[in-house]
Amino acid sequence: MTDAAVSRHPGDASPLGDAFHVFDTTLRDGAQREGINLSVADKLTIARHLDDFGVGFIEGGWPGANPRDTEFFRRAREEIDFRHASLVAFGATRRAGVAAADDPQVRALVDAEAPVVTVVAKSHDRHVELALRTTLEENLEMVRDTVEYLRSAGRRVFVDCEHFFDGYLGNPEYAKQVVRTAHEAGAEVVILCDTNGGMLPARVQAVVRTVLADTGARLGVHAQDDTGCAVANTLAAVDAGATHVQCTANGYGERVGNADLFSVVAALELKYGMRVLPEGALRETTRISHAIAEVVNLTPSTHQPYVGVSAFAHKAGLHASAIKVDPDLYQHIDPERVGNRLRMLVSDMAGRASIELKGRELGIDLGDDRELVGRIVERVKERELRGYSYEAADASFELLLREEVEGRPQSFFTTESWRAIVEDRPDGSHANEATVKLWAKGERIVATAEGNGPVNALDRALRVALERIYPELAQMELVDYKVRILAGTHGTESTTRVLVSTGDGGGEWSTVGVADNVIAASWQALVDAYAYGLLRAGVEPMG
Amino acid sequence: MTDAAVSRHPGDASPLGDAFHVFDTTLRDGAQREGINLSVADKLTIARHLDDFGVGFIEGGWPGANPRDTEFFRRAREEIDFRHASLVAFGATRRAGVAAADDPQVRALVDAEAPVVTVVAKSHDRHVELALRTTLEENLEMVRDTVEYLRSAGRRVFVDCEHFFDGYLGNPEYAKQVVRTAHEAGAEVVILCDTNGGMLPARVQAVVRTVLADTGARLGVHAQDDTGCAVANTLAAVDAGATHVQCTANGYGERVGNADLFSVVAALELKYGMRVLPEGALRETTRISHAIAEVVNLTPSTHQPYVGVSAFAHKAGLHASAIKVDPDLYQHIDPERVGNRLRMLVSDMAGRASIELKGRELGIDLGDDRELVGRIVERVKERELRGYSYEAADASFELLLREEVEGRPQSFFTTESWRAIVEDRPDGSHANEATVKLWAKGERIVATAEGNGPVNALDRALRVALERIYPELAQMELVDYKVRILAGTHGTESTTRVLVSTGDGGGEWSTVGVADNVIAASWQALVDAYAYGLLRAGVEPMG
Repeated sequence: MTDAAVSRHPGDASPLGDAFHVFDTTLRDGAQREGINLSVADKLTIARHLDDFGVGFIEGGWPGANPRDTEFFRRAREEIDFRHASLVAFGATRRAGVAAADDPQVRALVDAEAPVVTVVAKSHDRHVELALRTTLEENLEMVRDTVEYLRSAGRRVFVDCEHFFDGYLGNPEYAKQVVRTAHEAGAEVVILCDTNGGMLPARVQAVVRTVLADTGARLGVHAQDDTGCAVANTLAAVDAGATHVQCTANGYGERVGNADLFSVVAALELKYGMRVLPEGALRETTRISHAIAEVVNLTPSTHQPYVGVSAFAHKAGLHASAIKVDPDLYQHIDPERVGNRLRMLVSDMAGRASIELKGRELGIDLGDDRELVGRIVERVKERELRGYSYEAADASFELLLREEVEGRPQSFFTTESWRAIVEDRPDGSHANEATVKLWAKGERIVATAEGNGPVNALDRALRVALERIYPELAQMELVDYKVRILAGTHGTESTTRVLVSTGDGGGEWSTVGVADNVIAASWQALVDAYAYGLLRAGVEPMG
Repeated sequence: MTDAAVSRHPGDASPLGDAFHVFDTTLRDGAQREGINLSVADKLTIARHLDDFGVGFIEGGWPGANPRDTEFFRRAREEIDFRHASLVAFGATRRAGVAAADDPQVRALVDAEAPVVTVVAKSHDRHVELALRTTLEENLEMVRDTVEYLRSAGRRVFVDCEHFFDGYLGNPEYAKQVVRTAHEAGAEVVILCDTNGGMLPARVQAVVRTVLADTGARLGVHAQDDTGCAVANTLAAVDAGATHVQCTANGYGERVGNADLFSVVAALELKYGMRVLPEGALRETTRISHAIAEVVNLTPSTHQPYVGVSAFAHKAGLHASAIKVDPDLYQHIDPERVGNRLRMLVSDMAGRASIELKGRELGIDLGDDRELVGRIVERVKERELRGYSYEAADASFELLLREEVEGRPQSFFTTESWRAIVEDRPDGSHANEATVKLWAKGERIVATAEGNGPVNALDRALRVALERIYPELAQMELVDYKVRILAGTHGTESTTRVLVSTGDGGGEWSTVGVADNVIAASWQALVDAYAYGLLRAGVEPMG
């Protein structure tokens, strides 16, 4: 470790100053979420997104505790040129009875060469005695010694007081003593953690206020979401004087999760009027939220505050007619401020006003043709009854709309038949083969292709059959594929809905198929996907 | 409408008294959630669940506004014998310039024969002028007239002040005037609604406190979740003196959603120490939350506070070793109080302590055999790298565990090969056929079956092949089937993970399969599902 290596992190001097810290712990605490398993490459990608978003601190993991985190710190130093964030190494206070300088776990924190170290300390007396199995006095000594050692190594030090609120309720004097010890030893911020997530805002606010008055330490907050109040608890701590908030992207974290970075930051910027991100960063909120969901391989929550695709979606007929008058009456912020958008949903609850608005959104004027709108409403209702859902399949809805408006099918070929075969061989390998028989531009085409699954084989056979006639297909690529099994008593006997997202480099669109089996539903969604793509490319439908 | 019909609702006299109202609006406001589309039968089923849970009021819909809701009120009266809840009809104040008694929409509220009516009123001056297009005075008159008319028809009346908080910020005097008018006209409770969901707890608390002091009306709260603070906002209103909370099951609702009934009730009972549900009902929370998710056909949120399967799940190695000492140190409540349970997750982050605890949870003693535990950890790591996830597939994990503990495969047959064919015919119908070639108890079995999809056909062929040898299979039935596409650049070329839930009347278990295509992954999950089911049934594996 050299000072030069450490000072290479430009994040030390945030353009926003040091008065308020947005501290992200997605890579450490967020990774505890059930279902998340991050590679080093994933962590580097997420760190880049968080730095783009403009958080002040990125807690990267626990170097020394597992090889993946050690590797992450090495590569982050070498590969990422942080513009806003300081990298933070996480670790624990030294073991009982050993000097911090001699504890390999503490030394690994220094070796990570991150400019900031967060040290987790026990502040709940029962945890000290039952989990740590040491004395209350030795625990204080562990805090003091560890902080002083890390300070002497040139690190900024933050101390996470684990289980602080629970501990404070049982033994407030001891809990405060831990804060004082950390503060006096040189910790820049002492973070009060609701580790079990059981707190509610009123108590958080009262405790933070008292601890601030009684210790004089700079305080932060780390809230878990077990009561569904992590965002509110974080804001309550800020109300009480905390100037450092620990969050995770999309609220990822153990059990229910942590305080969601995006909700907290949006509230601070848009509701409190604080500047906590670089200029213009807030407009990237939705994009970055979804990009991180992509990396951790979780479907973005459709109903997440601010960034969910449903967050500014309206389907009530009651609202739809009034939204035409003035959208600001029906949304708490302009969705563009967080990079999201107003959406009108097509649904049998919505009726004519919504269909008209949706048409307008898609650039199709439905004018005052009440009969046309009525016909579309009927067709949507009938298809929704059969399991279709156009809410997440704009392109299939637009095809339906255009068919009714133009009075002819928006199709580029007709299907005679298709077949898919999946075979498991004695050696354990699989063969997937599909054959399609189509008519396009007066020509009958038969094509067969293999794939690594039956839908992939069908997709390839379709392309083989059509690419000569429609070379535009070569630009298109499936980017997402979702299967939903609809109601039914037996799991594999139900109706299946498939949603497919397709891209052509310039944009993405979603289509839907519904059938009694996954292959047939996928076929429908693929046919719509390519029809819409060809329309986008300016190709004239067959009629 | 007769008085007898109305008084048939026993919920009028809640055993908990009238001092605090738990008011559910899943069937009205919750149904606005994107993706929810409730039939009358669905609504009746949900109403029964909510009554079982013990809420005081169930808002059933808007009679007259659509035939489905009218039908719901008729059938609910005839078919449900409410034990705890009063049924509530929702509607709006009368139109401008028409007496309430002459407004068909208001009369439909009376005709619904529910003992309680909620009337939505405008309290935001701009909404009155721009959306309602009437004068502020006429709006007050509409509130007064509608409430008095419904009172004279013998109904209890609650008034929802739409957009109250936004309105209050712009014109507090007018907003309060609406509350006073409703109160003086005979409304029992006036509900302050954060319709756009943009509020934070501190402001909600301050506004509720002031309005309560200035109007003397009994106040309720209705919070949307657009800032992620709906639960906290609801509790903040209670802190300020509101004695009526409007919630929806699982927080379903328009855009981001509403305040979650289960989180609010759990906080009131477990954190505030209030009695708001009948004795013992809180232990049904998880079951009822999941049952309602089932009816609305949404996957229960794994990370929902209190009721999510992850809500009391631990995977951190750090915690796992300490949880062995004392689980209460690591959870904010005993999960059994809300009908949930502590779970240890198997994951490559967890290490030995978790595997041992998981073994104990499954009733398999891994004792102090460090080599055995190490072997299991290695195998889990290797499989998770390939895309397996045992967190949601306990049965597959238990099979793996037993194989290592007993040193032999837990299998009941060996697969020679299988094949599935899906064919789309020119008439639009589909044929699905599967053939399996197996060995069981020294016998080679070839079986072919048709199904309504390729996986269903495979499932049936497997049963045809094996039911003679293992008659226990007849009891087993697939109850859920989920497909997850894992990372990959092209949508249909990725690794596929299939999770299957199977039941035998006495219980359910989950298994996992991972392969390059959905059929092969389904096959693996099915093989595990039947192997586990046969073990459960006491059948001895082949070796």
